[in-house]
Amino acid sequence: MNLPCKIVLVMLFLTIGAKAQKKPVDYVNPFIGTSNFGTTNPGPIAVRGMVNVSPFNVAGPENLPLEKDSRWLSTPYVHENSFLTGFSHVNLSGVGCPELGVILAMPTTGALKVNHLDYGTTYSEEVSKVGYYSNFLDKHKVKVEATATTRVGVSKYHFPKGEANILINLGLGLTNEQGASVKVVSPTEIEGVRTVGSFCYYKPEEAYPVYFVARFSQAAKEFGVWKKPTTYKGAEAEWMGYNGKTRKMPGYKAVVVGDSIGSYMRYKFDEPTVVEMKIGVSYVSIENARENLEKETSTRTFDQILAEAKANWNSYLSKIEVEGGQEEDKVKFYTALYHTLIHPSTLNDVNGEYPKMKTRDVLKTEDTRYTVFSLWDTYRNLHQLMSLVYPKQQSDMVKSMLQIYDESGWLPKWELNATETTTMVGDPAGIVIADTYLKGITDFDIEKAYSAMIKSADQIEGNPLRPGIKDYLEKGYLTTKTTNSGSVSTTQEYNISDYAIAQLAKSLGKKEDYKRFSKRAISYRKLFDKEYNLLRPRNDDGSWLTPYNPESGANFEKNLGFIEGNAWQYSFMVVHDTKGLMRLMGGGKAFTDRLQDVFDKGQYDMANEPDIAYPYLFNYVKGQEGRTQEKVSELLDTYYKNAADGLPGNDDTGTMSAWAVFSMMGIYPVSPANPIYTITTPKFSKITIHLDTDYYQQEKLTIQANLSEMNKRIQSISVQGKSHNSYFIPHDKLVNAKLLEFKLK
Amino acid sequence: MNLPCKIVLVMLFLTIGAKAQKKPVDYVNPFIGTSNFGTTNPGPIAVRGMVNVSPFNVAGPENLPLEKDSRWLSTPYVHENSFLTGFSHVNLSGVGCPELGVILAMPTTGALKVNHLDYGTTYSEEVSKVGYYSNFLDKHKVKVEATATTRVGVSKYHFPKGEANILINLGLGLTNEQGASVKVVSPTEIEGVRTVGSFCYYKPEEAYPVYFVARFSQAAKEFGVWKKPTTYKGAEAEWMGYNGKTRKMPGYKAVVVGDSIGSYMRYKFDEPTVVEMKIGVSYVSIENARENLEKETSTRTFDQILAEAKANWNSYLSKIEVEGGQEEDKVKFYTALYHTLIHPSTLNDVNGEYPKMKTRDVLKTEDTRYTVFSLWDTYRNLHQLMSLVYPKQQSDMVKSMLQIYDESGWLPKWELNATETTTMVGDPAGIVIADTYLKGITDFDIEKAYSAMIKSADQIEGNPLRPGIKDYLEKGYLTTKTTNSGSVSTTQEYNISDYAIAQLAKSLGKKEDYKRFSKRAISYRKLFDKEYNLLRPRNDDGSWLTPYNPESGANFEKNLGFIEGNAWQYSFMVVHDTKGLMRLMGGGKAFTDRLQDVFDKGQYDMANEPDIAYPYLFNYVKGQEGRTQEKVSELLDTYYKNAADGLPGNDDTGTMSAWAVFSMMGIYPVSPANPIYTITTPKFSKITIHLDTDYYQQEKLTIQANLSEMNKRIQSISVQGKSHNSYFIPHDKLVNAKLLEFKLK
Repeated sequence: MNLPCKIVLVMLFLTIGAKAQKKPVDYVNPFIGTSNFGTTNPGPIAVRGMVNVSPFNVAGPENLPLEKDSRWLSTPYVHENSFLTGFSHVNLSGVGCPELGVILAMPTTGALKVNHLDYGTTYSEEVSKVGYYSNFLDKHKVKVEATATTRVGVSKYHFPKGEANILINLGLGLTNEQGASVKVVSPTEIEGVRTVGSFCYYKPEEAYPVYFVARFSQAAKEFGVWKKPTTYKGAEAEWMGYNGKTRKMPGYKAVVVGDSIGSYMRYKFDEPTVVEMKIGVSYVSIENARENLEKETSTRTFDQILAEAKANWNSYLSKIEVEGGQEEDKVKFYTALYHTLIHPSTLNDVNGEYPKMKTRDVLKTEDTRYTVFSLWDTYRNLHQLMSLVYPKQQSDMVKSMLQIYDESGWLPKWELNATETTTMVGDPAGIVIADTYLKGITDFDIEKAYSAMIKSADQIEGNPLRPGIKDYLEKGYLTTKTTNSGSVSTTQEYNISDYAIAQLAKSLGKKEDYKRFSKRAISYRKLFDKEYNLLRPRNDDGSWLTPYNPESGANFEKNLGFIEGNAWQYSFMVVHDTKGLMRLMGGGKAFTDRLQDVFDKGQYDMANEPDIAYPYLFNYVKGQEGRTQEKVSELLDTYYKNAADGLPGNDDTGTMSAWAVFSMMGIYPVSPANPIYTITTPKFSKITIHLDTDYYQQEKLTIQANLSEMNKRIQSISVQGKSHNSYFIPHDKLVNAKLLEFKLK
Repeated sequence: MNLPCKIVLVMLFLTIGAKAQKKPVDYVNPFIGTSNFGTTNPGPIAVRGMVNVSPFNVAGPENLPLEKDSRWLSTPYVHENSFLTGFSHVNLSGVGCPELGVILAMPTTGALKVNHLDYGTTYSEEVSKVGYYSNFLDKHKVKVEATATTRVGVSKYHFPKGEANILINLGLGLTNEQGASVKVVSPTEIEGVRTVGSFCYYKPEEAYPVYFVARFSQAAKEFGVWKKPTTYKGAEAEWMGYNGKTRKMPGYKAVVVGDSIGSYMRYKFDEPTVVEMKIGVSYVSIENARENLEKETSTRTFDQILAEAKANWNSYLSKIEVEGGQEEDKVKFYTALYHTLIHPSTLNDVNGEYPKMKTRDVLKTEDTRYTVFSLWDTYRNLHQLMSLVYPKQQSDMVKSMLQIYDESGWLPKWELNATETTTMVGDPAGIVIADTYLKGITDFDIEKAYSAMIKSADQIEGNPLRPGIKDYLEKGYLTTKTTNSGSVSTTQEYNISDYAIAQLAKSLGKKEDYKRFSKRAISYRKLFDKEYNLLRPRNDDGSWLTPYNPESGANFEKNLGFIEGNAWQYSFMVVHDTKGLMRLMGGGKAFTDRLQDVFDKGQYDMANEPDIAYPYLFNYVKGQEGRTQEKVSELLDTYYKNAADGLPGNDDTGTMSAWAVFSMMGIYPVSPANPIYTITTPKFSKITIHLDTDYYQQEKLTIQANLSEMNKRIQSISVQGKSHNSYFIPHDKLVNAKLLEFKLK
C-alpha cells in the first residue's frame, strides 16, 4: 500500500463525514505526523491513555530504510512502510528516542508461525479515526479493528473460516530492552511482563517492567507459549540439537521467562468468526493490569467502548470550537489539539497505584499521576495550552511533578513511566510550575514547589538537573570546558528557569530571591558576541571559542555551544529579556534585521524547539507585527498539513502541535513563566474556548476575526469591545475578556 | 583445599562421634559419591527433600577439568574442585545429566561484586553431616552453615565486621536452561523464578520454572538487582555505551527479567554478625514457595531445624539397625541407605499443590507426589528396598506414577519435576508396580495400573514408552533398522516388562494375559547367538549384525545393539528366564563359565545397571553359590568406600547405593517383578529391619550371621530356626521370618 492511497482513504472518510453535522472529533486525522519523523501513530488511544493500540510496521527488511534495527527509529509506525508484524499496546507519541512499542498482538491464519518475519504481512484498507483503527491483513485475510480505554486496548479480529491464531509476541519491540515473562492462565487469558526502558539508549539501570493481562472472547482450542533461547557456544552446544532454535510449548500453563518469548491462542473456525481481545496494562503489577481490564471494560462491547472513547475525546476537543476558515485548517487544528492530549499520559492504575520513581515501590495517588514529561519541549507551550483550556489536567500535572520531587528528591526533567531519563538540558519543571501558578492555577503546594525549584537552582554538588551549575553561578555561563555539548544553550535554559523563579518569588513576596534570580536570569548576556551579533561559546578562561562558525550545529550536528541547534537557532531564545537582547544587538531595527536574517538565511528550524517562538518576536518591535502574522501563517501552511507528513518533524509529545493550536487561534504564550500571550492572525473567524469555571470566572472566551481571502493582517484589536493597543495580552485579561476581536485588513 | 585434607576432616568427625553411642545418622558420610562421577553432593537435604543446599564448585576455569561448561558434568559439586561460587538450592543427586543446580546464594564481603568469577573463592574447614554442611569461604572470611527442611534451605552466614553481601545469582546454574525473574519484596525478602529443564540436553520444550522466596533475618541496609543483558550487534550497538555490560539497580523494587540476573542484600556490620537466610522453593508458584517457607520454618531457629532434620533422618535410617562387622562398613551402609532416601523426592508443596505433567496446570494431591523417577535404574533394586523397609513411601511412589499416567496418558519412564524426559530405554514403571503389588503392597488402584501397563505394552502407534514396538511384536525383537541404539537392550527391557505384566496378570487372575505376556517375555531368545554364546543384534531381514564384536559398546561407546553397555554386560540381564538362558548356553556349567568369563575378561561394569545382578547369578547353579558370596563381597570392598570416590560411579538416584544396602544385608532382589531375594554373606553379624506393620504382620526381621574374619561363606541357612535349603527366599516368607540366620564357615 502506498502513501497516496492511504491519504485518499482518509480524505474519503472526511468527505463522507462532512455530510453530517461534523463534530470536533470528526476532524481529527490521526495519520498526521506518521511520516517525516513526526513519530505519532494512528492507533486508538483514550485521552492521556496509558494504552495505545498501534499498528507496528517497523520490523523486517521489507521496511528498510525505516526499519527499527537498522537505524535510530523512535516510532512503532511509519506511514510509508508496508510490512506489519503486530499491534503494540504501549507506545510513545511524538518522541525522538526508541522506547516502548511492546506487547505486540497479531492475528494470523493457517499454521502457527511465531517468527514475525514469517507471519508479517502487508495490509490495506487502513482507517484511522479518533479512538479507532482498522486495517486488513493481506496475507491472513483478517480485518482488524481496535479501540482503547485509558488502560485497556480492545481489538476485534475478523477471522475467515479455518485455522486462526492470536499471537502475543514479547520478544519483538521498539525498545532496545529485552526480557519478558508470560503465562497462559486459561484458554481465554494470558498474563505477562515485558521489560522496557533505556530511552535514548541511556540509563539502562532504570529499565522497568510493564505488566499486562490479555483476555479473549473465545476460548482457544489450543494455546501455548514459545521461546527462542540464547544460542550456546562451546562444548555444550554439541549436545544441544535444539541450540538456539525456537521451541513451541503447547498446552503449557507455567510461566516462561526469556528475551524472545511469546504466547498464542489457536482456533479452528467452521465459519468466519470475530474474536475480541482486551489487553489491560499496568506499570505496577499483573493483578493491577487485570483490575484495570475488568474495571474499564468488563461488561462493555467493542462498540460501546469505541463510542465512549469517541464521546470522551469529543468532549475534550469541544473545549475549543472553531468556525469559519478552511476545512483543512480544522483538520490540522483538531488533530493538533488531539496530539496535545496524548502526553503527558496516565501512569496510575484504576486503583490509584503507581510505581515510585526509580525504585518502583508501589505508591498510591488520589489524582491522576501523569507521566511522559518531555519538559525541555513542553515548557514552551504545551503546558500553557493546558493551563488555558484544561486547567484541572495542568494542575494534576504539576502535582505529579511534585510527587516526582517527593519520591526522587528532584523535579522531573524528562520523566518517563517513573524513570528520570535526564534527556536534554536545562531545568524546565520550575518554568512550568511558575507559569501555571502565575496564571491563577494554585491548587497545589506552592511552597514545596518553590523549595524544589530553589534546590535545583542552588545546589552545587550532585545536581542532576543543572550540571555545570558551579561555573554558571561563578561565571554566569557554562564554558566549553564545563560541557562538551551545549554550553550556551544550557546557560540560556538556566536563565529562563531563573527568570521563572524570580517571577514566582515576586508573586510570593520573596523579594530577595526575586532580585537574586532576576539578575541570574540575564547572565546569558555575557555570551553575546557583538562580532556576530549572536551568542557564542566562551572558553574556561573567558576567551571566545575560536574559530567560530555560527552555522555549525544545525541538523543535530555536534556543536560545542548549542544542543540540537546553532547560534542562529538559539540567540533569540531569551524571550524573557528580549528588550535586553535588543539593546545588545543595537536596538529594535538591528534586532529585527538579525531576526529576519534567521529566516532569510534558512537558519530557522520549525522542527526543533529553541527557535519556535522566533516568528512571534517581531511583535516586540512596534510596527513589525505584520512580519509575525505573515511568518506564522506561512509556517502553518508550509509545515502543517492534512497528510502523514503534516508535522514539521517530531511532534515532541505535542509541542509542535501546541504551537499550531495556539498559532491558529491567534494567540501564543511567547515567554514561558511570563503569563502573557502575543497575538497573530487566527486561522478561523470564530474561536470559542470553553473555560473551566473551577479555575476561571468566565465560562468562555471568544476570539473573532473578519477572516477572508482578502483580510489577513491585523488592523486593530479589541477586548470586550474596547480597543487593545498592544500585540500582547496578559493571561488574566484574556481569560476575563469574553471577547477578543481582531479587525483584519 | 585438597582431597586428603577433606577426608581427614570427615574421619575426624567420625572418630569423635564414635565416643558417644553412635546412632545410624552418625554413620552417614555425605561426601561419599562426591567424586568419581558419583554426582552426589554433601549439602543438607531432608528425607526426600525438594530442597538441597549444595556447595556449588563447578563453575570457573579454576575448576577445570571438572568445569560445567567445558564438558558434560551433572553435579553441582565435585569433591576435588576448589573454587566455590555459591550454594545451589535445588539439585539432583546421582544423575548423569546436567539439570537444576540453581537458585545460587552466596555470602561475600567487601565491595559488591556480582560476577561469580570475581566473587568466587576457595574454601576450607568443610564439614558435612546428615542435614548439615559447613565451610569457610577463604576470600570472604565467612563461615557458612546450612541445613534444610523438605522445601526450605536454611543458611547461617557468619560475617566478619565490615561490608557484607548476600547474592542470589539466577544467571549461574548447572542446567543449560536460562531465564529468570527476580524481585526484592522488602529489605528482608526476595522472590523469583528460575527456568530449568532440558535434562540430558533433551526435550527443551518441557523446560519449566522453579519458584523461590528468600528471607533474611536481618534487614538489608541496601538491596538491589543486577542484570547482564544480551549484547547487541548492528547499528544500535553504537549508541549503547552500556551494551552487554552488567548493570546494577540499587533500591529497585520491581520485577527484573532476563537470562543473567540476580539480586543482592547489602549490610555494614560494626561487629561480627550472623545472618540467617531461608529459601523456600516450589514448582507451582511464588505464593506456594512463601507458604512452604512459612509453614516449615516460620518460628524455628537454625539449630531447631537442624535437630529436626537429623532426628527425622535418624528415624528413617534406624528402620535398619546393624550390629557387628566393620565400622567402615557401617559408614558405607548408612550412607548408602541415606542415598536411597533422596530420590524419588517430593514435588508437591505443603498445601498439596503440584504441577501437572508437561502443561503444568496446578493440581492437588493428598499423599506425597514424588518425582525424579529414574526408573531404568531404580526398577532393579531401589523400589524393592522401599517396598521392604518403607512400604508407605513405595505405595506413594506407585500412586505418583499413576498420577503421572492420569495426567499424561502414560506411565513414567524418567520423570523429572512433572516432565517426562524419556531418557534411556524400556518400559520400567510396570515392573516396579508389579513388584510392589506382588509383595503385598496393594493400597493403590491396581486395575488402573494394569491398564496403564497394557497400554504401553500393546499400543503400536505413538507409543513414547516402547518405540519400536511394532517390530518387537512382529519379530520378537527390535532390529538394527528399528533403532540405531540398543536394539538388543531394548528387546530385553521389553521382555522384563512383559514378564512383570505376566506375573501381575497371573496374580489378578487374567489367564490369557498371563499366557500372552509370558510368551512375549522370552522373545530375547531369538537374539541368542550360539556362535558367541551371547546376545547379538539382528538386522531387519533376520540376519545377524556382521561383523560383530561383542566387546564393543562398553564405556558409553556407540553400539548398535546395546545402550550403555555391550553384549557381555547385557546377555545375562534376563534374570526372569535364567533357566532359559542356561539352556541356550548349554546348561549350568556353560552358563557359569560364561558368567565367570564376564568377570575374568574385565567385562563386568559395577557402575552401570544392566549387569549389576550378575554377581548373584551364580546362585542359580547349585554348588556355585560361593562365587556369588566371594564376588559380592569383593565388589563391596573394591567399589564402595568411605571416601569421596566411594561409589562405583554415578549413584543413579540411589540404585548403586541400594545395591550396597541389600548386598551388605545378605539379600538381593535379583529378579524384578519376581518377589524373591537371593542370598549372600551379610557384612554385619546382626541386622534388624523394623517392618511397617501397616503393611507387614511382623514388627521386625532379624538377619544374623556368625560373621568373623574366619567365617565368610555360608554353610547353612535357617528361617526361624528351620533349615532353609535354598539361596532364594520369597518375599512373603522373608517378611514373616522374624529370623533369617546364616551359619558361616
